[in-house]
Amino acid sequence: MTQKAATEYQDLEALFGRIGRLGEAAAVLHWDSSTMMPAGGAEARAEQLAALNLAQHEMLTDEATGDLLAAAAGIDMDPWQAANLREMARRRAHATAVEPRLVEAFTKACTATEMVWREARPNDDFKLVLPHLESILALVREVAAAQADALGTTPYDALLDEYEPGGRADRIDPLFDDLAAFLPDFTDRVLARQAAGPDPLPLDGPFDRTAQRALAERFMQALGFDFAHGRLDESLHPFCGGVPDDVRITTRYEDADFTKALMGVLHETGHALYERGLPEGWRGQPVGHARGMSLHESQSLLVEMQVCRSRPFLDYAAPLIRAAFDRDGAAWQPDNLYRHYTRVERGFIRVDADEATYPGHVILRYRLEQAMLAGDLAPADLPGAWAEGMRELVGVTPPDDRRGCLQDIHWYDGAWGYFPTYTLGAMTAAQLYDAARRDVPDLEAAIAAGDFRPLMSWLRRNVHAQASLLDGDALIAQATGRALDPAVFKAHLEKRYLPEG
Amino acid sequence: MTQKAATEYQDLEALFGRIGRLGEAAAVLHWDSSTMMPAGGAEARAEQLAALNLAQHEMLTDEATGDLLAAAAGIDMDPWQAANLREMARRRAHATAVEPRLVEAFTKACTATEMVWREARPNDDFKLVLPHLESILALVREVAAAQADALGTTPYDALLDEYEPGGRADRIDPLFDDLAAFLPDFTDRVLARQAAGPDPLPLDGPFDRTAQRALAERFMQALGFDFAHGRLDESLHPFCGGVPDDVRITTRYEDADFTKALMGVLHETGHALYERGLPEGWRGQPVGHARGMSLHESQSLLVEMQVCRSRPFLDYAAPLIRAAFDRDGAAWQPDNLYRHYTRVERGFIRVDADEATYPGHVILRYRLEQAMLAGDLAPADLPGAWAEGMRELVGVTPPDDRRGCLQDIHWYDGAWGYFPTYTLGAMTAAQLYDAARRDVPDLEAAIAAGDFRPLMSWLRRNVHAQASLLDGDALIAQATGRALDPAVFKAHLEKRYLPEG
Repeated sequence: MTQKAATEYQDLEALFGRIGRLGEAAAVLHWDSSTMMPAGGAEARAEQLAALNLAQHEMLTDEATGDLLAAAAGIDMDPWQAANLREMARRRAHATAVEPRLVEAFTKACTATEMVWREARPNDDFKLVLPHLESILALVREVAAAQADALGTTPYDALLDEYEPGGRADRIDPLFDDLAAFLPDFTDRVLARQAAGPDPLPLDGPFDRTAQRALAERFMQALGFDFAHGRLDESLHPFCGGVPDDVRITTRYEDADFTKALMGVLHETGHALYERGLPEGWRGQPVGHARGMSLHESQSLLVEMQVCRSRPFLDYAAPLIRAAFDRDGAAWQPDNLYRHYTRVERGFIRVDADEATYPGHVILRYRLEQAMLAGDLAPADLPGAWAEGMRELVGVTPPDDRRGCLQDIHWYDGAWGYFPTYTLGAMTAAQLYDAARRDVPDLEAAIAAGDFRPLMSWLRRNVHAQASLLDGDALIAQATGRALDPAVFKAHLEKRYLPEG
Repeated sequence: MTQKAATEYQDLEALFGRIGRLGEAAAVLHWDSSTMMPAGGAEARAEQLAALNLAQHEMLTDEATGDLLAAAAGIDMDPWQAANLREMARRRAHATAVEPRLVEAFTKACTATEMVWREARPNDDFKLVLPHLESILALVREVAAAQADALGTTPYDALLDEYEPGGRADRIDPLFDDLAAFLPDFTDRVLARQAAGPDPLPLDGPFDRTAQRALAERFMQALGFDFAHGRLDESLHPFCGGVPDDVRITTRYEDADFTKALMGVLHETGHALYERGLPEGWRGQPVGHARGMSLHESQSLLVEMQVCRSRPFLDYAAPLIRAAFDRDGAAWQPDNLYRHYTRVERGFIRVDADEATYPGHVILRYRLEQAMLAGDLAPADLPGAWAEGMRELVGVTPPDDRRGCLQDIHWYDGAWGYFPTYTLGAMTAAQLYDAARRDVPDLEAAIAAGDFRPLMSWLRRNVHAQASLLDGDALIAQATGRALDPAVFKAHLEKRYLPEG
């Protein structure tokens, strides 16, 4: 690196550090909006977040930023600096690709459509929101076209790139086609096997919320969550927010059923451990961020689906659960808890779906949003296409749009290109956990003994500490020895849901 | 207003609206730091706040901002717009007066000195912090000189202007000299009278914290605090934070004594009602902010000292207090509660001082900080000057520096010019309440009946809704019919502490 280029790179680090810290401020305010803010604070909060976004946007799109990036490009630097520069350029490309008037029109359409959707969904009134969905689609196509021009990708891949940097539909299609061919028959077999076995014994409530919370915190701590650098709170929709040195997860407790909140907390803990494990030396810098939503979801699903719904975990957890709620008997043994936590059922609702049927919900949405973006499916025809896809991929026909194409907020608030990351995350989780078990002797014995350090140290090294140094594919290949391969996820499903004997 | 000037004014409103919203974001983060943030989040939080400050500072000091202000100056506009423009110019003058390298040196010295002070105070080690205090003073003098140049004031008034816009020592001196002459003899008489009467009966604890909180919330609601636009939380040092549409106050409960937390909440409620009552149409704009720290303190002290420590309030409150803690008997009658809440005692510590001795503490600090700034008092001579002043103004000699010149954070973290606002606030509170009682028939009867609407509507109209339209003196004159007059405060003290008979 020449001295001059070095100076320019340092200037970029300072600038993007400031942008990153403003982004962190917004993240804390988002957490606050969902956990602490009284309803009357919403309007002022929206203004605060808009001012923060605008400040970041101006710094990114400033001509001087482009000059610095141009001056720093193409010179020798270490791989982390080079990756940081690449991520800076990617962020600027996204920010500059779309003209301000289009950004504004899109933002307004999202806000308006989401409001109408919030009314349309409970009333099962797709027609009410249809014109808004049509407007949003028209704008999404404009945005995607502009982004595609700037990034040199297809329009759909440009949308995907916001959530899954470097993601490409032509890499995802074969993976999802493979799963789509596998799942219907697999689900039939699982359901047949499940029907032949005993029903899970009921876990009778009520369950004291303080006890639920204490139990959740105990598992969080065991997994490595550090309460000096994070919190657990309550919110309507559970999420992981905050910043790497202050990670804030939320859950929602039910008196009658502790199982959902508990697994929800463990899921968010997986997200939180990823954030917390990002490399300290790159805080605030683009390369220091988590790699993308697939990898993020892989970390929550690895903890929830791969680890915490497994027999070894439940062998460890069952006595603690019994003690927390002062319960005993057959229903509270690992066998029965495992039966609860691995129950498979065909349903209409994605967020309630189990591990085996979830990918069908996602692949449906992935295909439909591509078709709409390409102009092959008109929003007016969405309900019919949805029903047809659900029959094919999940094996049920939704009785109405409320439990069909109105159920998810994504398309109505502008998050096109997000859906595939859920199932890419599930596949990645399976593959990473498979590799960790091969690399770390007695990993599952340690988990059964409540010792998560071997697993976490593997994840820290192979995933968390890598941040955005590599692209997702390269990270997976480096950590597991091969590209993302649906065979590993399928093998996991078969082993868990169709064990021999 | 010409069309062009109108455009320039509109641009300024948009710009200062953005600056204001970034300031609001910082306010919420400050609240979070004291209430929710885990210790490990402190470093990242400091970076977030620094990025927010820098963004606001750059927008204020941008040459284009100066050009807009110049273009908009001197043209006809309505009084609110004119006041808004004046406040914009004042904010820019403060921001541009001090060179960035001095701002940075001062900020660093404050952080470093505060850290040393945190060690020096508990160890009663003034010598440890003395060199740092000397450095801070040298920098404060540089800052004050630069601000004085920009504002056309004396150096001390330039510091004062940050907290008390338009405040002038030559206006404060006679007010404080008047009080300083009155208080020592007054306190002697109060203490003699107090000694001749019965001691208050003890209010025996413990007091359940949930009950303390519920009682505090009940009074907050009665006073007009709207929980759809605010919160009550806990923090080490009670404060009022957040933003006008989402005002967040805090307190600290003690099991053994409910009286401090309760009066503390009522004090912060006074601050909160001021913020909440600022005019909605000017949210985020400079003119829409509270007028200054004296007026802010006047609102908390009006609620706490004038209203809630009065007999009419305690007549209303006593049965609610008894019910909250399930107590009864003579100790829990209004007479005895009033005796507790109006107890006078000469002490060493400002924050523990009662209404009658508090001004002595403040006048001491006001005189000492002026002397240090003028070079008439060397920091090395501070302990001696402190002891001498305490004997004169409060009538006690502090046994050590921990209970002397080390007790307050202000000088050690750079808040020079802040102290006088406490006592200006107390005087203003007395004068406003006096005027409200004259304007509103049966005001105290309403308070005794738990009806605070007449008082709040008077305050809304005469103080809160005025925001920063007028300067503090003009606001007081408009609301009360005369300039700030120590006679009103003295009359209040005499009536409360030396009633006839």
